[in-house]
Amino acid sequence: MSIITLITDFGLEDAYVGIMKGVILNINPHVQLVDLTHKIRPQSVKEASFLLRSAYGFFPKGTIHVAVVDPGVGSERRPLLVKTPSFFFIAPDNGILELIYQTEPVQVFHLNNPKYFLPEISVTFHARDVFAPIAGYLSLGKTCEELGIEVYDYQRLEWPLPKVEGNFLKGEVIYIDHFGNLITNISKHQFQNFIGNKGFSVKIKNIVLKNIAPHYLAVLPGEILAIWGSSEYLEIAQSMGSAKHKLKANIGEKIEIKKETK
Amino acid sequence: MSIITLITDFGLEDAYVGIMKGVILNINPHVQLVDLTHKIRPQSVKEASFLLRSAYGFFPKGTIHVAVVDPGVGSERRPLLVKTPSFFFIAPDNGILELIYQTEPVQVFHLNNPKYFLPEISVTFHARDVFAPIAGYLSLGKTCEELGIEVYDYQRLEWPLPKVEGNFLKGEVIYIDHFGNLITNISKHQFQNFIGNKGFSVKIKNIVLKNIAPHYLAVLPGEILAIWGSSEYLEIAQSMGSAKHKLKANIGEKIEIKKETK
Amino acid sequence: MSIITLITDFGLEDAYVGIMKGVILNINPHVQLVDLTHKIRPQSVKEASFLLRSAYGFFPKGTIHVAVVDPGVGSERRPLLVKTPSFFFIAPDNGILELIYQTEPVQVFHLNNPKYFLPEISVTFHARDVFAPIAGYLSLGKTCEELGIEVYDYQRLEWPLPKVEGNFLKGEVIYIDHFGNLITNISKHQFQNFIGNKGFSVKIKNIVLKNIAPHYLAVLPGEILAIWGSSEYLEIAQSMGSAKHKLKANIGEKIEIKKETK
Repeated sequence: MSIITLITDFGLEDAYVGIMKGVILNINPHVQLVDLTHKIRPQSVKEASFLLRSAYGFFPKGTIHVAVVDPGVGSERRPLLVKTPSFFFIAPDNGILELIYQTEPVQVFHLNNPKYFLPEISVTFHARDVFAPIAGYLSLGKTCEELGIEVYDYQRLEWPLPKVEGNFLKGEVIYIDHFGNLITNISKHQFQNFIGNKGFSVKIKNIVLKNIAPHYLAVLPGEILAIWGSSEYLEIAQSMGSAKHKLKANIGEKIEIKKETK
Repeated sequence: MSIITLITDFGLEDAYVGIMKGVILNINPHVQLVDLTHKIRPQSVKEASFLLRSAYGFFPKGTIHVAVVDPGVGSERRPLLVKTPSFFFIAPDNGILELIYQTEPVQVFHLNNPKYFLPEISVTFHARDVFAPIAGYLSLGKTCEELGIEVYDYQRLEWPLPKVEGNFLKGEVIYIDHFGNLITNISKHQFQNFIGNKGFSVKIKNIVLKNIAPHYLAVLPGEILAIWGSSEYLEIAQSMGSAKHKLKANIGEKIEIKKETK
Repeated sequence: MSIITLITDFGLEDAYVGIMKGVILNINPHVQLVDLTHKIRPQSVKEASFLLRSAYGFFPKGTIHVAVVDPGVGSERRPLLVKTPSFFFIAPDNGILELIYQTEPVQVFHLNNPKYFLPEISVTFHARDVFAPIAGYLSLGKTCEELGIEVYDYQRLEWPLPKVEGNFLKGEVIYIDHFGNLITNISKHQFQNFIGNKGFSVKIKNIVLKNIAPHYLAVLPGEILAIWGSSEYLEIAQSMGSAKHKLKANIGEKIEIKKETK
């Protein structure tokens, strides 16, 4: 049974997501449909890219991931199909797949065969008219070469990376989750390479933390802690609360790791 | 594999939707369940009717659409099953299927056979006790005649239609989506019939627009535009923003198309 | 086809729920996945317990219910698998299954076999690393004895029960739903035992009600009413409105049933 996941900024108030599913099921009623999320902030291509990276690898080989945050719908921006060793991705060519490009070897196809679109193409809803039918046909076994033509000039996205400055590793908050956890761009791997066997401190806003907590309840309720999140990036959390509210922090907030030199 | 879609005003905080699905799966575990939306504003039969019309036709022939916005639950209002050439609809008799009645030839059945309800019928949750089990049995192949009895006096809903007054076509906003797009009741078909090959202007609040945009990015970010929405109704949108917030507009807001006579 | 339901406090903004589903489908792609809700208030074990009780029994025999509200994730709290005559429950050992323990004969297993977890266990996301894979393997036919070891010292939760004081039955609001209905802990069974064939009045805040309404429209729009909810607990509702807003009531609000003695 083919699996198709969906990630969009469509929200859950309207029927847009349901309509996409109808189009897919009309082509292949035997797929397993999974929502990653539809609550990406409107037009936030970066947020979708981040969440897609955190999720895609946990699905079975062959899963088709459809990612639609698409402010350029109806313009010249191209619809893409991306093939990696284990997965397919269907998305507009606006950088939403940036973190896939960074992580996986990819083959990128421009979906230029209207035979596999809906017969009428609107100017506002290509998720329904282009991306959903392509997902349906792909799940039936159509090949990338039948659906499009390989291209190499797909759009990339600037992605903020941490910087080393002397004894400091400087990163930032790149995502804030439902619990108010502040997820930074500092990976466990990069942190350990930087710190080695030295001591360290973590500074965000006017808070300084001296260690990484083993779990959320390792500090008193209400206290701020640093912890390795589920994708092995450093998170700032509040035990039994929301770090976002407690620290009044937003995406882009700076975080500094200081290496002790003594 | 049978497909059953659900549209309700139950929200996603409670377990009401999950319970409906449990009841259906208890009767037929092999259905494909699709949520259209559960975030209809409480008791807004009109909103559900609008979204159902935008979605139902994209599903495979034979799909069963269950629509429950039901302030009269537990009272004398009847549960209905409606059959069209391609679909089934299960809903309370309160006008929620108005736009199906306007669009499709229908046969309407009063669900009067408690053999196909849950054994205990509550006064507050017929979605669980009546509509869900009927959907389950219908997906197993029960006929409309086994489940109910044909009726002709089903409830209709008043639906606001645009009016021509001299050189003006006057409509209104009938739905506002997650992006803040204002969806009006003026269809492309009616617009083109009215305007012919003349010039026109579109007026909403104190904004006057001189053309229909080819896509959202055809104007500068922040600007208001008119565009043909995905169901071919005229929409007022803000490029990279929310027309609802920008214009402080609500459902019922008036919109005027003026035909240039020179 | 196996059915797995999910109830969590993960919200729908992030990809956490989608990731859980990916892990399950990677082990068994043929399951039917159903969301009960993911909008439990963060860390509210009680709310999840209440909603799970209202829903679990409507699913087919053999359904696997996964309940994760887990402030103690990563600490010493144990992951559990609970078997009842008809269902399985997978959850942290923090009382979230209290109302299952009160309602069903249970066998409780400590999930202590890492062979059935993901290879890497994070400290923040056992729903992905422990609970989801266990659900997958259970759906493939693994036995409770293979997955864990029976234990008897699982954690219970204090649950507020109504009290009889003379001619008064005193309860409280234990849940407020999406419509603003106030759901109390007074069951129809307990009410009828207490009142017998006597008269009664229901008092909440400064409102006194003299009867139980047969349905929501039995009073004028805007009026407060008492009604038997869908799980046969007494609810306070506002016709065509929200009792929560009208009465400014919260969870814990007291309600009194007075038995007339004349």
